[in-house]
Amino acid sequence: MEKNYKMLIAYDGSRYYGWQHQPDKITVQGEIENAIERFTGKRLEVIGAGRTDAGVHARGMTANVFLSTQMTDMQIRDHLNRYLPEDIAILEVREASKNFHARYSAVGKTYRYTLYYGEKPSVFERKIVTAISKKPDLEKMREAASLLMGEHDFKNFCINAQMKKSTVRIVDRIEIEEENNHIYLSFHGTGFLQNMVRIMVGTLLEVGYGKLSYEDIKNSLYGAESKKAGPTAAPEGLCLMEVDY
Amino acid sequence: MEKNYKMLIAYDGSRYYGWQHQPDKITVQGEIENAIERFTGKRLEVIGAGRTDAGVHARGMTANVFLSTQMTDMQIRDHLNRYLPEDIAILEVREASKNFHARYSAVGKTYRYTLYYGEKPSVFERKIVTAISKKPDLEKMREAASLLMGEHDFKNFCINAQMKKSTVRIVDRIEIEEENNHIYLSFHGTGFLQNMVRIMVGTLLEVGYGKLSYEDIKNSLYGAESKKAGPTAAPEGLCLMEVDY
Repeated sequence: MEKNYKMLIAYDGSRYYGWQHQPDKITVQGEIENAIERFTGKRLEVIGAGRTDAGVHARGMTANVFLSTQMTDMQIRDHLNRYLPEDIAILEVREASKNFHARYSAVGKTYRYTLYYGEKPSVFERKIVTAISKKPDLEKMREAASLLMGEHDFKNFCINAQMKKSTVRIVDRIEIEEENNHIYLSFHGTGFLQNMVRIMVGTLLEVGYGKLSYEDIKNSLYGAESKKAGPTAAPEGLCLMEVDY
Repeated sequence: MEKNYKMLIAYDGSRYYGWQHQPDKITVQGEIENAIERFTGKRLEVIGAGRTDAGVHARGMTANVFLSTQMTDMQIRDHLNRYLPEDIAILEVREASKNFHARYSAVGKTYRYTLYYGEKPSVFERKIVTAISKKPDLEKMREAASLLMGEHDFKNFCINAQMKKSTVRIVDRIEIEEENNHIYLSFHGTGFLQNMVRIMVGTLLEVGYGKLSYEDIKNSLYGAESKKAGPTAAPEGLCLMEVDY
């Protein structure tokens, strides 16, 4: 009998054209579907909580898939890990209710963006941090972040806004912490538009360098003009940490 | 005027055929000499504290090179980092005495080997840990490690022993620690033979799994027979941490 399985997934996105299928491109979703095909003999759709862009990582992507199997949750996980490449790991597999849908059931997401300032980042971290040459003003960035928090129309903080019914989202937490030349920006919200976290990071950095003002942020949020807020930060610093259900 | 510069170097060895030059292969030494050639116009020899094997990493390799330049130590470092690939970083450049020789002046070295047991290692760590399927007995490993400590003929703990005038070395510290499914083995000694740390790790692991006994270790150290002690652990878990002068 077919059951619905919820999977918790980590991946190093460096090699992939993002989560979502694309013709003739290597994607995380495609690799997981390949692995499932290896032991079930069937091509089954794996539904992810959301898309991540090319080069973006995950420590807590969630997905679901319907399978008919006698295997236990742990056996499914171990089989998948055996067939998956080293840069994708299934951390957990758990049977879920029939109604569970990784995308529609999600009620919140946490992303973390990691910046490194100073000399070259550690050779062992170079694919998971974004290097910046000098330290931005964190207090200015925190001040600007407080403007972004709450319910806003984020049309100027995304790409392909015209494809969306609504570009209104709630961001209820932005935390900016510093440790050992690393700056960690954590974002929690009900959902994020395409490139939204990276544009928020790029915008906050411009504020931290004194190139954008709080007024500019307010204009991007409330002004009539449709114009991208700040630049889009590079993908390698971004990681999907957790999806709430 | 020509000065002698001491360099502290970190590298992710995954892509390289080790430190040392090899015809038609990409090596760390070769990359650093290329970078120096880019800004001096000259092919100069970079002398490393020792060789690391293909796939082995470093957080504290030391090397020296003679340069004629008006640049400050920091400018040399920054130039090198600009020309080097992302997986090699010059952490420090400092003028040294004419007599300083990265290999001959070295009086000790610290290596660390990292094992990961359990499920797949973190996708972000996969190139810097060696995965093992189950946890070995650490107390047995520590007991066996105490046999290896001291001054011994390590002829059965290396390859190419016949190329060496002497295979006697002093290992004065082996520490085995555990944290979060990781086992860290630290080795400090006056010097290490080719593959010696990896063979010590492979041997200690066999003891930890009950496949080799303390007697076997003693036979490898003191027996007349010339036979390799245990298997050679994989390169990716190994990292040169520090060279003492």
